[in-house]
Amino acid sequence: MSKVLVFGHKSPDTDAITSAIAYSHLQKQLGYDTEAVALGEPSAETQFVLDYFGYEAPRVVTKSDEDVSQVSLVDHNEPSQSIDDLEDLTVLSVVDHHRIHNFNTSGPLYYRAEPVGCTNTIILKLYKENNIEIPKNIAGLMLSAIVSDTLLFKSPTCTEEDQEAAQELADLAEIDLESYGLEMLKSGTNNEGKSALEIVDGDAKSFDLNGHQVRVGQVNVVDFEELLARKEELLEAMAKENEDKGYELFLLLITNILESDTLGLVAGDHYDRVESAFESTIENQEIKLPGVVSRKKQVVPPLTDHF
Amino acid sequence: MSKVLVFGHKSPDTDAITSAIAYSHLQKQLGYDTEAVALGEPSAETQFVLDYFGYEAPRVVTKSDEDVSQVSLVDHNEPSQSIDDLEDLTVLSVVDHHRIHNFNTSGPLYYRAEPVGCTNTIILKLYKENNIEIPKNIAGLMLSAIVSDTLLFKSPTCTEEDQEAAQELADLAEIDLESYGLEMLKSGTNNEGKSALEIVDGDAKSFDLNGHQVRVGQVNVVDFEELLARKEELLEAMAKENEDKGYELFLLLITNILESDTLGLVAGDHYDRVESAFESTIENQEIKLPGVVSRKKQVVPPLTDHF
Repeated sequence: MSKVLVFGHKSPDTDAITSAIAYSHLQKQLGYDTEAVALGEPSAETQFVLDYFGYEAPRVVTKSDEDVSQVSLVDHNEPSQSIDDLEDLTVLSVVDHHRIHNFNTSGPLYYRAEPVGCTNTIILKLYKENNIEIPKNIAGLMLSAIVSDTLLFKSPTCTEEDQEAAQELADLAEIDLESYGLEMLKSGTNNEGKSALEIVDGDAKSFDLNGHQVRVGQVNVVDFEELLARKEELLEAMAKENEDKGYELFLLLITNILESDTLGLVAGDHYDRVESAFESTIENQEIKLPGVVSRKKQVVPPLTDHF
Repeated sequence: MSKVLVFGHKSPDTDAITSAIAYSHLQKQLGYDTEAVALGEPSAETQFVLDYFGYEAPRVVTKSDEDVSQVSLVDHNEPSQSIDDLEDLTVLSVVDHHRIHNFNTSGPLYYRAEPVGCTNTIILKLYKENNIEIPKNIAGLMLSAIVSDTLLFKSPTCTEEDQEAAQELADLAEIDLESYGLEMLKSGTNNEGKSALEIVDGDAKSFDLNGHQVRVGQVNVVDFEELLARKEELLEAMAKENEDKGYELFLLLITNILESDTLGLVAGDHYDRVESAFESTIENQEIKLPGVVSRKKQVVPPLTDHF
């Protein structure tokens, strides 16, 4: 059997990259010839995690190698987020924690999805079910993903299982969860060398809301001021993206990971809909979103309801 | 939380009905308010199984009750095979062993699919993972589904896991697998009281093969002669179905479950494609398919290749 590629979604976050490494390692222990790859370069946060636990970043690919016919997807299933030649490949397995959308196969496969905060919480279960020991440094990568996806358990996407999994992995990795977690999250908040476009679009997703094209970006900070100092420049980049890509609205979520709070920047149309969605007012293209940390759970649903 | 309905596919077979019962029982032990229902009446085989282990047939529904908003699917995921008002409902979980097709959700869910021969093989794992004891009569229902889906382990869809699961469940149910299994399979081969249409279409599925509408029925027997005696009547029913429903080809698989052998009856066009698909000739609308027992693994793939 030829090699099986394992990868997470495009614009990979820490969960996408580490779940590919952790799942590929498990599959190898079970006798399969697998390689973890990535559909993009690691973010600053992910690079911090890889360096901390002594791992090389996975090879970056956009399509599969010529001799590869089988793949395993982690942390995603939607073809638009996946490898470019997905339709020519056989998906052997999927491990994910998102909705299922436009994912079709011609034959049966292994599919494991659970409504938890992080793919690695599910992968920990798979290790246990198969009685495979988790190496110390892979446990470190896995707990980092849980901290990243749940913003140290503060996101409403976080479940009890995620918290317990992270603690169990921290014990394995001999890591203090709180202090390491904060250090890791902070490593992803350094926006100094980045262009305005890199900040607004680095972790942005598009949504078709009742026919309206809406873009929602998110950037983590430890202090709102560092980005508010560049507010005009960010708004210009958002307006230019709207013009270039045809978005009617661009909402940038600046999330303070220490205070679990978000400040939104708004460019484009539909201010009335944004204001009623969040029961708040937009002043100088700014909107306060107290207590908001999750785009998936706290931003997209109210926007969807008001479009 | 209101009640969750659990059901298998339309035109239910033994796996569809018993996996709903077994999964619903598991969910109840885990504290959920669930009810197993069915999207059709039990077949003769399924009724034999229910009677043998002292179970009532589940309530038959075509759409959900008014106060139900959440459902769990077993043994299927394709909306065309599911409850009529599926798009108005939230799917909490799926346990299945088929391909994934046209199944989309708006939020994350529990999805457990494995490429094994029977849904109940997966459900046995779920009982174990949750440390829930399986009642003796539910073990009996579950092993019956494995025997049914794998034709007593003779189908190429059968995996080692299915065989081990059936043995484990037989021990729990205190059943001799071989003798019970044969008796059960035979109970589903009584076609005496059935009309020709009931026989050709009772377990038939439609396939769009490169734009050609093809219908493939399957009926189990212990002796080819009992149905060959009604050959003209069956061919007439197939031709009428082609005319009424617009199928270009109707292939009826008459499968001898004792000898793991199939005889095909053919009505409609594309004889050349059928002959090349199975490297065999059609004589008097009959084609020998030695060793064939699985529509999914041994009939649909070669047909697909030749259309």
